[in-house]
Amino acid sequence: MASKVEGLVLLMGGYTFKSIMSGDYSLIMRISKVVRELKGLGIKIAIVTGGSDLARIYIDVIRNMGGDNYTQDYAGILATRLHATVIMSSLGSLAYPKIVKSYEDAAVAIAMNRIPVSGGMQPGQSTDAVAALLAEKLEFNIIAKMTGVDGVYDKDPKLYPDAKKIETLTYDELEHIIIDKSYHPGTYELLDALSIKILRRSSISTIILSGDNPEALLDLIEGKNVGSIIKLG
Amino acid sequence: MASKVEGLVLLMGGYTFKSIMSGDYSLIMRISKVVRELKGLGIKIAIVTGGSDLARIYIDVIRNMGGDNYTQDYAGILATRLHATVIMSSLGSLAYPKIVKSYEDAAVAIAMNRIPVSGGMQPGQSTDAVAALLAEKLEFNIIAKMTGVDGVYDKDPKLYPDAKKIETLTYDELEHIIIDKSYHPGTYELLDALSIKILRRSSISTIILSGDNPEALLDLIEGKNVGSIIKLG
Amino acid sequence: MASKVEGLVLLMGGYTFKSIMSGDYSLIMRISKVVRELKGLGIKIAIVTGGSDLARIYIDVIRNMGGDNYTQDYAGILATRLHATVIMSSLGSLAYPKIVKSYEDAAVAIAMNRIPVSGGMQPGQSTDAVAALLAEKLEFNIIAKMTGVDGVYDKDPKLYPDAKKIETLTYDELEHIIIDKSYHPGTYELLDALSIKILRRSSISTIILSGDNPEALLDLIEGKNVGSIIKLG
Amino acid sequence: MASKVEGLVLLMGGYTFKSIMSGDYSLIMRISKVVRELKGLGIKIAIVTGGSDLARIYIDVIRNMGGDNYTQDYAGILATRLHATVIMSSLGSLAYPKIVKSYEDAAVAIAMNRIPVSGGMQPGQSTDAVAALLAEKLEFNIIAKMTGVDGVYDKDPKLYPDAKKIETLTYDELEHIIIDKSYHPGTYELLDALSIKILRRSSISTIILSGDNPEALLDLIEGKNVGSIIKLG
Amino acid sequence: MASKVEGLVLLMGGYTFKSIMSGDYSLIMRISKVVRELKGLGIKIAIVTGGSDLARIYIDVIRNMGGDNYTQDYAGILATRLHATVIMSSLGSLAYPKIVKSYEDAAVAIAMNRIPVSGGMQPGQSTDAVAALLAEKLEFNIIAKMTGVDGVYDKDPKLYPDAKKIETLTYDELEHIIIDKSYHPGTYELLDALSIKILRRSSISTIILSGDNPEALLDLIEGKNVGSIIKLG
Amino acid sequence: MASKVEGLVLLMGGYTFKSIMSGDYSLIMRISKVVRELKGLGIKIAIVTGGSDLARIYIDVIRNMGGDNYTQDYAGILATRLHATVIMSSLGSLAYPKIVKSYEDAAVAIAMNRIPVSGGMQPGQSTDAVAALLAEKLEFNIIAKMTGVDGVYDKDPKLYPDAKKIETLTYDELEHIIIDKSYHPGTYELLDALSIKILRRSSISTIILSGDNPEALLDLIEGKNVGSIIKLG
Repeated sequence: MASKVEGLVLLMGGYTFKSIMSGDYSLIMRISKVVRELKGLGIKIAIVTGGSDLARIYIDVIRNMGGDNYTQDYAGILATRLHATVIMSSLGSLAYPKIVKSYEDAAVAIAMNRIPVSGGMQPGQSTDAVAALLAEKLEFNIIAKMTGVDGVYDKDPKLYPDAKKIETLTYDELEHIIIDKSYHPGTYELLDALSIKILRRSSISTIILSGDNPEALLDLIEGKNVGSIIKLG
Repeated sequence: MASKVEGLVLLMGGYTFKSIMSGDYSLIMRISKVVRELKGLGIKIAIVTGGSDLARIYIDVIRNMGGDNYTQDYAGILATRLHATVIMSSLGSLAYPKIVKSYEDAAVAIAMNRIPVSGGMQPGQSTDAVAALLAEKLEFNIIAKMTGVDGVYDKDPKLYPDAKKIETLTYDELEHIIIDKSYHPGTYELLDALSIKILRRSSISTIILSGDNPEALLDLIEGKNVGSIIKLG
Repeated sequence: MASKVEGLVLLMGGYTFKSIMSGDYSLIMRISKVVRELKGLGIKIAIVTGGSDLARIYIDVIRNMGGDNYTQDYAGILATRLHATVIMSSLGSLAYPKIVKSYEDAAVAIAMNRIPVSGGMQPGQSTDAVAALLAEKLEFNIIAKMTGVDGVYDKDPKLYPDAKKIETLTYDELEHIIIDKSYHPGTYELLDALSIKILRRSSISTIILSGDNPEALLDLIEGKNVGSIIKLG
Repeated sequence: MASKVEGLVLLMGGYTFKSIMSGDYSLIMRISKVVRELKGLGIKIAIVTGGSDLARIYIDVIRNMGGDNYTQDYAGILATRLHATVIMSSLGSLAYPKIVKSYEDAAVAIAMNRIPVSGGMQPGQSTDAVAALLAEKLEFNIIAKMTGVDGVYDKDPKLYPDAKKIETLTYDELEHIIIDKSYHPGTYELLDALSIKILRRSSISTIILSGDNPEALLDLIEGKNVGSIIKLG
Repeated sequence: MASKVEGLVLLMGGYTFKSIMSGDYSLIMRISKVVRELKGLGIKIAIVTGGSDLARIYIDVIRNMGGDNYTQDYAGILATRLHATVIMSSLGSLAYPKIVKSYEDAAVAIAMNRIPVSGGMQPGQSTDAVAALLAEKLEFNIIAKMTGVDGVYDKDPKLYPDAKKIETLTYDELEHIIIDKSYHPGTYELLDALSIKILRRSSISTIILSGDNPEALLDLIEGKNVGSIIKLG
Repeated sequence: MASKVEGLVLLMGGYTFKSIMSGDYSLIMRISKVVRELKGLGIKIAIVTGGSDLARIYIDVIRNMGGDNYTQDYAGILATRLHATVIMSSLGSLAYPKIVKSYEDAAVAIAMNRIPVSGGMQPGQSTDAVAALLAEKLEFNIIAKMTGVDGVYDKDPKLYPDAKKIETLTYDELEHIIIDKSYHPGTYELLDALSIKILRRSSISTIILSGDNPEALLDLIEGKNVGSIIKLG
């Protein structure tokens, strides 16, 4: 079972932004509604937004223009910040009124009882790592990552119909699954190495949730098991 | 005839970025090649990038999320900055290595013999106005705006087959054309009111060029007439 | 009649600072007293200060030194910021303790229940436009501009004794009056073009008030008609 | 005799800006001409501008509004920055294009072969101290302070007709003169205590020059004695 | 007797950090406990941390590397900021979550009901001066400096066994003691000249306390005499 | 054999700063001499400084004060910046005059023909990763890491007398060695996971060198094999 939520970093993976470029905002609006309810329950929340297809398109363009990896990452960050403005708009005055660009700014936002919304922070650093460092700085104990699958499986569920979801696992077990050869690198990366290192050193738990089911976050607060939870051990 | 080019602000309107999201980079690469040639000729250059369809998509999303006009503009700026990273990548070490976010930074870039690349600067201010203020701060005498038509016409060329291109006109004449009732507002805005005010007060000429024909900039340097030129009077 | 005031941007035109350089602080102190009362009534307020004669003097100096228009504007901004420090001093701890230099900072100030005080923000942009963008970012519905006349007249009241004050008008009607030939450009500019564009797109009303009569702001809050009010239509 | 000038901080005391508010720019233009000549001779130069009467007027206003000393100092800094924009305009592209707000920025300007122009930096710190710290950071060996008298006198020359100018003195001797009871505090402060401490620790010499005679700086470069020179001992 | 404490700047001199490099944290923990109690009593507090031996070591290194005095000061500031992180950690969420680097930031922290923690601010400026300017900006009336002696003595207590502690004195009297020849410069500097100037102009009192006895701060709040108090006169 | 050095990031591991706190500056001075020679040969150089024992001491203090991991990292960064000031001082005007705090600033420094010196950049990110990202942004092809051993060994050389140095290896081979159970984690970490990922994606080679032998860098430039070189494969 999940620990009591003292503070929650909501990591909105690329999946959650997939449909907005085609004009379908329903998922974002559902997520926004859930965040408002969580805030109403007194939960401290910070949000990190991914770059989704938009990041991938511009990274491709820049690579084709001869741009280096650093600049590709930088463009990816601008894409995540576009998504941050979307979420900030959906939250109105609950959100801190600046896009958060440092961990200290996020702490100021929390001290003002607002929701800090951040995209990526720096080239070479994933939004997973941003979420982990935010949790550390804010002394939050849970990260909820909304992604394209509804939890951690023992095998890649897209390739193996008999893959089984694991309700609770440790960071050590997660690393074994990620390194396992039956996974195709990149297609199913649950958390990157740096973020695991940070989450482990600060005993922060991670919930892997389906991006399709934001309402599960309300169950999480009630102590129910949702998705997969990764703990220290 | 155009004045001798003492310094050139190249304003890459939305048109020039239209095709990159579908993977066609040929126009950007041609523009990049022309800019390298101009720089090789010793011309001082600064570049301002528009937001194109990308800006429009995200502005729509934010409006639908309930975001205010300010945040819509802010998202538009992030879109222009994504395009700035594209151009900076295409120019390699000719470009100043930071996205330019202030007019002073652009002046520092010029003092270092690099090309400053800027997107939008601030909500409520068009990239036209950014180009005009850059020209003023850098003491450049020409803005070349690459757009979807190859000059200023006496009537909207998309609606009137007999519209005639005007080779040379004054800012006063331009304002008459823009205000004229036969134009549909928004569909063919050549320069916005604030930028005209700035260009006029500092005697900066504007060339309206087709985004399809960047090579015309080389003709411009040789003193040939290209597109339409708007002068003080 | 004015709409209920949800939030007020007080735009202190040059007129309000005219006398301080000669040591007469009485008007500023009356304005400060009114602002304190409005704050005491729970009204959200932001303040934008003009540059007055001080700006004009230094802009002249810089022009004579050969400085470009950009630098002239920049000096004008420094003059407005000197006036911002005056107002901040008069408001003590009600004011946000930094001169506001971005719209996001103003929003942070409001979230902390302080009054943000801003001068100009950027060359090429009037304090009218700053007030309009602040109202937009802060989601305030009224701008009160304190100026040298007590409202909008059908003709320039300094030239025509029979000029009549218009109690309520639309932004369209205002633009007609401004463009009208019987006005001398510059001598009686009520709102500039960019600010009208912003105010219209976000349905923000503007009250034109006499700088001599700050107490009229208290009447405004009570729903009385003061000065002239410009609305969407 | 003065040491060879390896680098010069030109400290333009309030005296040099006295007349510009009344429209007399001749002194500023003469100073600008001298600075251009010095630069042409290959001398490294940085400039610090004082606040003059403008600072005093606004400090008075703020004190009368109930503003604290900190804010009074801050307004004084804005006044010095207005003067910095005047000097930057007079120097055109020889000047670094941003008002210098940190010692590191000044060092960047020098590395780019531009003249950094700074006003005050921080409340509680005089422009004397700014000049001293700039000289230290830039490894310049001379500060030339242009002020209302043409050197250091053994008594206050405004009160004592028999006061004698001292051509060369040490910082110890200067301190004795400043502390001496025959001086009225404030009326004739040559250098403040903090700046003397810095100049002494880094063996930087100071020339006290008449603001009326900027051309003396050219003599200084040729090794002639001008004004009074204060050395380590 | 001390005035009622309206706001307190706690200046933690080098003495208070002396033992932490050898792993003895007891003094810091006692100070932290006292600060928490003061905050619990509703006292407004800001903290300035000194650089202690750490600063001295690195200043020596840089001098030996040929670094200028400016860079030596800068390294000293980094040392004070390391100590600021220590204090911030000991105070948890009572502290403002960013190291304070400007006086305005400190005022924002106070407006948010957090304790601002600052080290040095700028080369050429002591932590004494930072404390004085903070008190001025925050409108606090007391600075408590924790140092290696428990007050101001008529002679240097390390050299003269018959030195007597002075319970109350004026800034004028303090200056006489500091200038007095029986004192070795540097070994016993109570307050530097710039900070005395600031404290005097804003009527801020200073308490000199033993760093060994932080609990005396609680007595101070109750109106008891502790250490020595320096007042305006 | 090493590739031709197009640009070199010199990563000064903790080892190189070990002795300065005890007053032995000889190693730093030798490194500084080598860097000056490399610069004289026209090699582009950037430097990243580690935190050494100083970082470890303060991280321990903060952990004992109850500070979170984020703040511990932040203190570590301040320690690396103290070391950056030491190196900058030793290089005089060859170094960029500001501590580099962003990758863009480093690129500006290179464009100005100065050596950028950086410590850590952000919590959660090692100086290894900073060096890797700098190399990427600056388009440098070599990182030279000066550390406590003179290369990569097949086993931990401190535990196994028969450990053999590997002259050339791939990043894949390096990862195998790091993961190998015969290594004690932490005691001999050659490069962290994030930096390997970046170096691999941008084909940057790494040389592992003994911190005791900075002169080997001159051999490296001449194309000789020094330490161990890790390449793409």
